[in-house]
Amino acid sequence: MPFTHLDENQQPQMVDVTDKAVTRRSATARALVQLTPEIMRQFDGQELQSKKGPVFHTAILAGIQAAKKTSELIPLCHPLPLTKCSVTIQAVDDVRVEIRATAVTDAKTGVEMEALTAASGAALTLYDMCKALSKAIVIEDIRLLEKTGGKSGDYQSAT
Amino acid sequence: MPFTHLDENQQPQMVDVTDKAVTRRSATARALVQLTPEIMRQFDGQELQSKKGPVFHTAILAGIQAAKKTSELIPLCHPLPLTKCSVTIQAVDDVRVEIRATAVTDAKTGVEMEALTAASGAALTLYDMCKALSKAIVIEDIRLLEKTGGKSGDYQSAT
Amino acid sequence: MPFTHLDENQQPQMVDVTDKAVTRRSATARALVQLTPEIMRQFDGQELQSKKGPVFHTAILAGIQAAKKTSELIPLCHPLPLTKCSVTIQAVDDVRVEIRATAVTDAKTGVEMEALTAASGAALTLYDMCKALSKAIVIEDIRLLEKTGGKSGDYQSAT
Amino acid sequence: MPFTHLDENQQPQMVDVTDKAVTRRSATARALVQLTPEIMRQFDGQELQSKKGPVFHTAILAGIQAAKKTSELIPLCHPLPLTKCSVTIQAVDDVRVEIRATAVTDAKTGVEMEALTAASGAALTLYDMCKALSKAIVIEDIRLLEKTGGKSGDYQSAT
Amino acid sequence: MPFTHLDENQQPQMVDVTDKAVTRRSATARALVQLTPEIMRQFDGQELQSKKGPVFHTAILAGIQAAKKTSELIPLCHPLPLTKCSVTIQAVDDVRVEIRATAVTDAKTGVEMEALTAASGAALTLYDMCKALSKAIVIEDIRLLEKTGGKSGDYQSAT
Amino acid sequence: MPFTHLDENQQPQMVDVTDKAVTRRSATARALVQLTPEIMRQFDGQELQSKKGPVFHTAILAGIQAAKKTSELIPLCHPLPLTKCSVTIQAVDDVRVEIRATAVTDAKTGVEMEALTAASGAALTLYDMCKALSKAIVIEDIRLLEKTGGKSGDYQSAT
Repeated sequence: MPFTHLDENQQPQMVDVTDKAVTRRSATARALVQLTPEIMRQFDGQELQSKKGPVFHTAILAGIQAAKKTSELIPLCHPLPLTKCSVTIQAVDDVRVEIRATAVTDAKTGVEMEALTAASGAALTLYDMCKALSKAIVIEDIRLLEKTGGKSGDYQSAT
Repeated sequence: MPFTHLDENQQPQMVDVTDKAVTRRSATARALVQLTPEIMRQFDGQELQSKKGPVFHTAILAGIQAAKKTSELIPLCHPLPLTKCSVTIQAVDDVRVEIRATAVTDAKTGVEMEALTAASGAALTLYDMCKALSKAIVIEDIRLLEKTGGKSGDYQSAT
Repeated sequence: MPFTHLDENQQPQMVDVTDKAVTRRSATARALVQLTPEIMRQFDGQELQSKKGPVFHTAILAGIQAAKKTSELIPLCHPLPLTKCSVTIQAVDDVRVEIRATAVTDAKTGVEMEALTAASGAALTLYDMCKALSKAIVIEDIRLLEKTGGKSGDYQSAT
Repeated sequence: MPFTHLDENQQPQMVDVTDKAVTRRSATARALVQLTPEIMRQFDGQELQSKKGPVFHTAILAGIQAAKKTSELIPLCHPLPLTKCSVTIQAVDDVRVEIRATAVTDAKTGVEMEALTAASGAALTLYDMCKALSKAIVIEDIRLLEKTGGKSGDYQSAT
Repeated sequence: MPFTHLDENQQPQMVDVTDKAVTRRSATARALVQLTPEIMRQFDGQELQSKKGPVFHTAILAGIQAAKKTSELIPLCHPLPLTKCSVTIQAVDDVRVEIRATAVTDAKTGVEMEALTAASGAALTLYDMCKALSKAIVIEDIRLLEKTGGKSGDYQSAT
Repeated sequence: MPFTHLDENQQPQMVDVTDKAVTRRSATARALVQLTPEIMRQFDGQELQSKKGPVFHTAILAGIQAAKKTSELIPLCHPLPLTKCSVTIQAVDDVRVEIRATAVTDAKTGVEMEALTAASGAALTLYDMCKALSKAIVIEDIRLLEKTGGKSGDYQSAT
């Protein structure tokens, strides 16, 4: 008999959170996106217009929708019903914008991946809306800024 | 620095329901669909047969499945785990059928959109099943009939 | 033996389009949505602002995304890769807006359901964005305006 | 007027679980998959390599992801947020492997379908990974092994 | 530097079908489901009624919809636009039914997994519809019956 | 009448590619992920083990699956049937790994977003698998490395 029991430490598994308490969880992530001066010149003070339409509006919606798909995109994430998801975009200098995404829920596990997925989804959509203008856009620095709740406690990014 | 902080009132956001209480929520919506006398002649007292199969059965299932996809279809809806979703179809006169959809859950926000999405999904499927017989089918009057639960209280449509 | 072969005419089936030719297909559908004078007063000439953000922009995106999900929402629809999907919204009088959705592809079957699903998805989202202002919004008159291509030929709605 | 009220016993419906209590639910299902001696010779003690990559890893991940999609795949299933989902694969003799899937949640209804869907999703993926080597693979014996929780009580399969 | 280039033969990959020709592909799969005599007594000659509604109709629709989700469920499957998908259910003896699923498309790769996924999705749904009557239902023998098209040629199952 | 025709340049739209030719399209994107020396010490020459299982394998599968969901995640992307999608991960120094994703299809529009979405999905999953070890992981530098095909011609990143 050639097969033996597989050591399950070597195989993928969803972490068992069954016996954890439901507590309030929040997380904020950010993505920096480096555009170009040409693209930034389309900025009218509130929005950036592309040939596909308003860039920030579309990216914010895509980020919120991506957050709701987190457990579908990341194989070992638990499905979590978000009670809040907000995404904002603002300029940090003359070629870069910062996307910030916050996710909140009452759950047995944290929402860091939901915040990171929202930021990434918004960044990819921003890229898509602007790519006719430049192929050299770079999504740089997607990271967790802070989280609260859960056994591992609160976290604040050094940056 | 060309960008300023975007006024978030002008950008899309999911309403924050984190601090709302979980209460029993229900909503009933309806969609009227105007078929044709030719289509209605296929009605056998319980079902309407099309070349794609039984129309009402298929439309009811599609409506229930659409309700489960509400937060995926409507960008700023919160994901809600339905505990009940029922869809019924009945004739209101010799060319029109009424689809009624009820959704129920215990949640922090209401299920009106789930009921409306169920009714719409069933109506579109009914259209699809019958469209080989007529292109002049009209989905008319999708509306909320009633809702219960939540801070804004109960609602009953005038019609 | 109690079971006999099921007559497949009585059971649901996807229409077999294997031997049909790939041709250019287009379809345009519309949905009329009856809002209220109070809601329409928020209109600034281009957009309608709600507490969830810009209404038309969000509804248009939701309509386009719904079109891409047509074969998932309508059980017996074939998956079709759209090459164009546009959604526009305009006022028709002081309480109603008209959503128009056009879908185009090169395929073996038509895109009527994609256009109707886009119009419905946009209408439901418009409802969701405005429902805090009124529960009496009605989606009225979702219909096919025209289609081109395919064996059944072109179609133009009487209205 | 040709239509009468449809008897809803004859039409599909999601079972109403609104008034059931939330309790701990678990279920374990299994799928036996009959491979071939040729395929089993690729087994290295822990994994089975195919031209598409590691078979068991991929099948386990697909099973967990399928469990999260249960309410999307099975029309009348309620959406349930799993707190645990584990899938393991082990050899039972020189041509067959057994997939075991366990799902756990705190909910108003059981997770049997989630466990069965996980086992089926893993079995189909195992098939897909190996089908270049043999078209004669058979998925045999998908069944519930046990469940706990809920009004109908615990269940243990005879086998 | 601890990392070296990963040998990609050991990592999962979608098979590259870019340079294969588009040809007509078809596949038929089946699933046998062992019910109980009690369940079979509900059979009325055409349908099997459960408290969730008509069993065969719902299972057939679920099978067709599952086929359209094949590339989402099976990680390394290519997305294929089906031009035909049919599912039928018939009794084979007094406790078992056979589900047959056929998928057809014009594509660069085969549709075996689509046919197998349709059969599995229908079998799981049949299980779900009947599980209130018995927990001892077994899905036995899911296999490919035949395929046509593609470089590897036609295949006919021995059984 | 308060509403006027909305200028559609200001509203989101999918670019119309109906009249473009179907040609071979490919794109390669990368994501750099900065882990920590502690995490990298788990590397065994081929894989990185976490408490959720093998990291690279899971991330690669998630990247491929994300690529297939591109048109669902990015609102104005066209659905494209990929004929190849490969993802590889390799170390670039003692704290960073590089994910490379290539997408290929024959289509009317390019696959840059598919390659970028694959790289991002793999990076997010890598983050998720390792986040129990460090919250300071950073996804840095997601960019297009090259593309071929289409009217805008080939592109090679300067870096």
